[in-house]
Amino acid sequence: MKAIILTVGDELLIGQVVDTNSAWMGSQLYELGIQVLAIESVPDHPIQLESAIRRSAKVADVILITGGLGPTKDDITKKVLCNVMDCGLYFSDATYNRIQRMFEKRGIPMRDAHKEQCMMPDKAEILTNARGTAPGMWFDWKEAILVSMPGVPHEMKYLMTKEVLPRLDQMSDVTLAKRTVRTVGIPESSLASMVEPLIENHDVSIAYLPSRGQVRLRLYTNGTADSLDAQQKKVDAVAASVAEEIGLPFFGYDEATLESVLGEMLVDRGLTVATAESCTGGFIAHRLTSIPGASRYFVGSCVAYSNEIKMRQLGVLADTLDAYGAVSIEVTQEMLQGVLKLMNAKVGIAVSGIAGPDGGSSAKPVGTICLTVGSQEHQVSKKIVVGKDRMINIEYATVFGLNMLRKFLLAD
Amino acid sequence: MKAIILTVGDELLIGQVVDTNSAWMGSQLYELGIQVLAIESVPDHPIQLESAIRRSAKVADVILITGGLGPTKDDITKKVLCNVMDCGLYFSDATYNRIQRMFEKRGIPMRDAHKEQCMMPDKAEILTNARGTAPGMWFDWKEAILVSMPGVPHEMKYLMTKEVLPRLDQMSDVTLAKRTVRTVGIPESSLASMVEPLIENHDVSIAYLPSRGQVRLRLYTNGTADSLDAQQKKVDAVAASVAEEIGLPFFGYDEATLESVLGEMLVDRGLTVATAESCTGGFIAHRLTSIPGASRYFVGSCVAYSNEIKMRQLGVLADTLDAYGAVSIEVTQEMLQGVLKLMNAKVGIAVSGIAGPDGGSSAKPVGTICLTVGSQEHQVSKKIVVGKDRMINIEYATVFGLNMLRKFLLAD
Repeated sequence: MKAIILTVGDELLIGQVVDTNSAWMGSQLYELGIQVLAIESVPDHPIQLESAIRRSAKVADVILITGGLGPTKDDITKKVLCNVMDCGLYFSDATYNRIQRMFEKRGIPMRDAHKEQCMMPDKAEILTNARGTAPGMWFDWKEAILVSMPGVPHEMKYLMTKEVLPRLDQMSDVTLAKRTVRTVGIPESSLASMVEPLIENHDVSIAYLPSRGQVRLRLYTNGTADSLDAQQKKVDAVAASVAEEIGLPFFGYDEATLESVLGEMLVDRGLTVATAESCTGGFIAHRLTSIPGASRYFVGSCVAYSNEIKMRQLGVLADTLDAYGAVSIEVTQEMLQGVLKLMNAKVGIAVSGIAGPDGGSSAKPVGTICLTVGSQEHQVSKKIVVGKDRMINIEYATVFGLNMLRKFLLAD
Repeated sequence: MKAIILTVGDELLIGQVVDTNSAWMGSQLYELGIQVLAIESVPDHPIQLESAIRRSAKVADVILITGGLGPTKDDITKKVLCNVMDCGLYFSDATYNRIQRMFEKRGIPMRDAHKEQCMMPDKAEILTNARGTAPGMWFDWKEAILVSMPGVPHEMKYLMTKEVLPRLDQMSDVTLAKRTVRTVGIPESSLASMVEPLIENHDVSIAYLPSRGQVRLRLYTNGTADSLDAQQKKVDAVAASVAEEIGLPFFGYDEATLESVLGEMLVDRGLTVATAESCTGGFIAHRLTSIPGASRYFVGSCVAYSNEIKMRQLGVLADTLDAYGAVSIEVTQEMLQGVLKLMNAKVGIAVSGIAGPDGGSSAKPVGTICLTVGSQEHQVSKKIVVGKDRMINIEYATVFGLNMLRKFLLAD
C-alpha cells in the first residue's frame, strides 16, 4: 500500500509553523509497512489543494490530509473535499451535540464558528474527535482512501491512533524488515567506511541520518522473496554485527535515546543522578526528565547561571573562578562535587560554557564548553569547541554530557 | 516571484527526521516577499526527485532543494541534477582543496567518500560551504533557478544566508505587508469573534496559528494597488487595534516569545528571576536561558524532583508535603519562597505536577499542575489540569508559568 501525506496551511509555507505532523504520520505508516511516496504542504488555497489531491490519487492508495478544518475563515479543506467528492454539506446533529457537551464541560459558551464545524460532507464517514471540535472524515473514494484530520497535533494523533491506523493496518501487507542502529560521537563518513563492508553481501540497505553529534543507521530489506520473519532475522543479524564493529559509539537500537539508555543504566546500577548546569540552563535536566519514570534515578539539578550561585550553592571557590574563569574544567570539577553533595546523588554531570552568540574571547571563543562527569571518587573532564549558534551549542553540550556519563558508567 | 521547496530523503518520509529546513527556508523567502507555492518531501529515489523537479519548474521561478548530497551511498541528488540539466560531472580541484584543508584543521584524514563529494555537475555554479563538506550548487536553468544545498540544517542556513537569499533578494519585488499579533491563554474561536469585526473593512487578511496555549494571528495584505509603505501602515494600524481589543492575552508582535518579552520586562524593572521546578524538570529554566543575554536577569534554578530535595534545598516543610501532597498549591508556595531565598532572586516561578503518563490518582489525575509565581511579598497561584501526554504537559506548564509571571509583573 502506498500513501501520500498532504498538510494544509499558509503558516507551513511561510515557515511560521514547523510541520511535525507529517513526520509522526510517516513513522506510524512505516510501522505498518505502508510506503509514503511524498509529503506535501500546500497553502490555504482551494485550487492548489484540489490539484494536489487529484495528483496524489493517481499514485497513492491512501491520502492523509491534515489542517484547514479550524473554526476560522482561513480554513478551506471541507469545501475542496465536497468538490472532489462531488457532494454537498449537511448539518451533523451528532457533531453539534458532541461539541456542545464539550463546551458545557469547560463552562464556556459555544460560538457560531463552531456551528460551521458541524457542517459535514454527505459522503464522509465522521471520525469522532474526542480531543477537539473538528471531526475527522473518512472517504472511501473510488480513486483512493482519503482521510481528513485537524492540524492540531494531539487531535490528529488521537484520530490516527484510534481510527485511522487500525483500519489501515487491516488493509496493509507488511513487507519491510528494519532495524535502526544508533551512534553518538562518530562522523557519518567514518561510520560508512566501517559499516559498508559488513552489509555488502547481505541484500540489506542502509541509510545514514546525522543530527547534533549523533548518527542513526537505518538498515532495511525491501520486497525480497523471503518471508518477513526471515527478513527480520537477516536485518537483526547484520545490525548486531554493525553494532559490534562500531563499538563504544553504538548506544542502542530503534527508538533508544541517550537519555533513555542512560536511565536504564542508572536503574540497573541502582544509582541516582544530578546535574549542575551553567550554559545548558537546565536542558540536560530536561532531557533526563523527558523519560517517564525518571524519578527513579533523577533527584534534581542546580542551574547555576551566575558565579554567585556557583559559589554559594555548589561551593565553587572564588580562587578557582579567578584563576581559571567560569568556563574551565577546574570550575566544572568543583560544580560536580558540589551538586553531588547538595543533591545527595551518586553520579552527576557538570557543564559550563559560552553558549553565545556573544561573550567569547580569543582564548575562549563562543561555543567553548567544559564538562565534568562522574562520582565523588572518580571523574572525567573534557573541553570542546562547538560553534556560534546558541541552541546548537546548548544541544551539543547536552549530547556530550549525556554521552560522557554513559561512557563513564560503562567503564566504571 | 514564486518558489517551491523540495527536501530529499527517505528519513523524512518514514518520520525518522522532522523536516525543519523547509519552515526556516519558507520564513526567509516570505521575508523577501517570495511566495512559496508548495513544500514537498521526496524519497531517495531518482525518478521521484526528477519528476518533482520537472513538475515544480512548470509553476515556480525558483526551486530550492535540500538533502541527498552526503558522502554515503544513499545520496542521489547530483545524479538527478545532471540528468535534468543534461550535463556531466567533473572533479572540482577547488572543492577538493577546501575539504582537505578542513580535515587537516580537524586533524582527521580525508576519506574516499569525500572525493565523491568533489564531483560536480558541469553546469553548476559552486556555492562554497564553509560549514561542511558538500558544496551548494546554483543552476541558471532555462526553466527556473534551481539551487541544491546539503540537508544538514546549519550548513543549509549558512549557504542560504551567505549566497542564496542575497541573490534572490535582488531578483524579487516585495509586495507583501505583514504583522503577527501573538497571544497566550485565549482560544482561537474567542479570538476570532473579537477580531473579525475589527478587520472586516480594511482589506487585510488574517490567519490563526494555534499551538500549546498560544495563538498567533498573522495579518497581511497581498497584491493591493497601494505602495508597500502604505500597505504596511494599514496592517500596523489594524494590528494595533487588534492587540488593544485582545488586551492582556496579547504579549507581542512578530518574533516575540513569552521568554523574550519576559526578559525585556525583567531588564526594564531591574529584577532577577529564578525557578523551582519539579515536573517541568528544568524546561522553564531552559526556555528562559534560550534568550541571548539571559544572564542579565536569570540567576539560577533548583530542579527539585525528589521530595527530599524539595525539603532540603527549598525548605518545603514535611508537614506541608504530608498534608497536601507534593503536587499542591501549598507546596509550590513554599518552593517559590525557598528558591527566592536560595538564589537571592527578586521574582520566581515554582511548579509541581504530574507529567505522566503514570502516577495520577482520581483526586489528582495525570496532567494536574500547580504553579506559584511572584516575589517574597506577593504571590499568585494556579492549578490546571492539562492532559495525558508527558511532553505536552511539560510544555503547557512552562507556557503557563511564564505567562503567569508576565501578568504578575504587569499587575505589580
